[in-house]
Amino acid sequence: MKMGVLGSGMVGQAISARLAELDHDVMIGTRNAAKLKEWQSINRKVKIGSFAETAAHGGMVFNATLGTASLDVLKMAGEPNLNSKIVVDISNPLDFSKGFPPSLTVSDTDSLAEQIQRAHPSAKVVKTLNTIIARIMVYPREVADGDHHIFISANDAGAKAQVAELLKSFGWLHIIDLGDLSTARGTEMYLSIWLRLWGALGTGNFNIKIVK
Amino acid sequence: MKMGVLGSGMVGQAISARLAELDHDVMIGTRNAAKLKEWQSINRKVKIGSFAETAAHGGMVFNATLGTASLDVLKMAGEPNLNSKIVVDISNPLDFSKGFPPSLTVSDTDSLAEQIQRAHPSAKVVKTLNTIIARIMVYPREVADGDHHIFISANDAGAKAQVAELLKSFGWLHIIDLGDLSTARGTEMYLSIWLRLWGALGTGNFNIKIVK
Repeated sequence: MKMGVLGSGMVGQAISARLAELDHDVMIGTRNAAKLKEWQSINRKVKIGSFAETAAHGGMVFNATLGTASLDVLKMAGEPNLNSKIVVDISNPLDFSKGFPPSLTVSDTDSLAEQIQRAHPSAKVVKTLNTIIARIMVYPREVADGDHHIFISANDAGAKAQVAELLKSFGWLHIIDLGDLSTARGTEMYLSIWLRLWGALGTGNFNIKIVK
Repeated sequence: MKMGVLGSGMVGQAISARLAELDHDVMIGTRNAAKLKEWQSINRKVKIGSFAETAAHGGMVFNATLGTASLDVLKMAGEPNLNSKIVVDISNPLDFSKGFPPSLTVSDTDSLAEQIQRAHPSAKVVKTLNTIIARIMVYPREVADGDHHIFISANDAGAKAQVAELLKSFGWLHIIDLGDLSTARGTEMYLSIWLRLWGALGTGNFNIKIVK
């Protein structure tokens, strides 16, 4: 499938490389193509484009930008290029400007995912993958043989099912459907404990498993 | 040990009963002793008192009140009755006034635990147990044989160690020390996903296990 990945940081690179490995036709969108030169030399199948070119390329579009930049980047991507498409929002609403730990830029009464959905009403926003580090997003089996959970939130049931299939192709075994997009407040607020766990455990290489 | 439990809802009742079962000398503090009449008939070892009497009784004091009432209740308990004592804060900063899911009354830049600590600087506030339902707090082995995690946050290392010992006596196997009391922001913000997981799973009878 044609995939557009907005954002060329660690998350955008990891998602793009994994999608290409799974034989999707991938373009990664960046403001600064020069910084991807070395990365592209080992990821030759991935095309590089502007945000607008990348959104136009993708049948499915990933928002892998910094949370503080997401709304601007999606605006640059352009409404016609996002119209009716699935937008997989992986961004974290974190403000790093005041040091570590960064603080959340939204409170429990809203989420970045909902802000993106309001700004792009024709897009089908699906929130997922924002609760782990980039490597685990795309190679979940590397942690505890994949015996841990990922969450998914969206208003459009069909879009959610399609993204869940993609997650399975990454290797995800346990996907919890939290409900509509407002449940992204839960996974976004989760970042607060995730950051402290990272500090306490001394590694970001972990996830949570729900036990009953 | 002499224990004072402020709050007579499900959490206060569960903590009081479990502490009494473990042979502590327990008083439960309430505004309305009458409502505890039936409960006390099967929990005869637990004394009932006012908030001030209960705080005075306890060598360790538990805040098991609603988050929206906690600061008021601790004020009624009285500074001299809390002075230098460990205050185990189990409260959840949730506002139920606008229906379900309730929303958080603090944002990521503060926590109810820190508010309590600021209001009672001589107390040793320890945040823990607020991330699961009452039954699991005191009988953690009933879920997945106890193979899941509880978190603890406090500024005073000695107080934190003493509360960790108490958690072990409840049956907790895996206690993660998140750090100072500001890390309670993490466990309090966690309530946002916890509430959505409760909705998605159809039960509050679950917890999370950290896997690496």
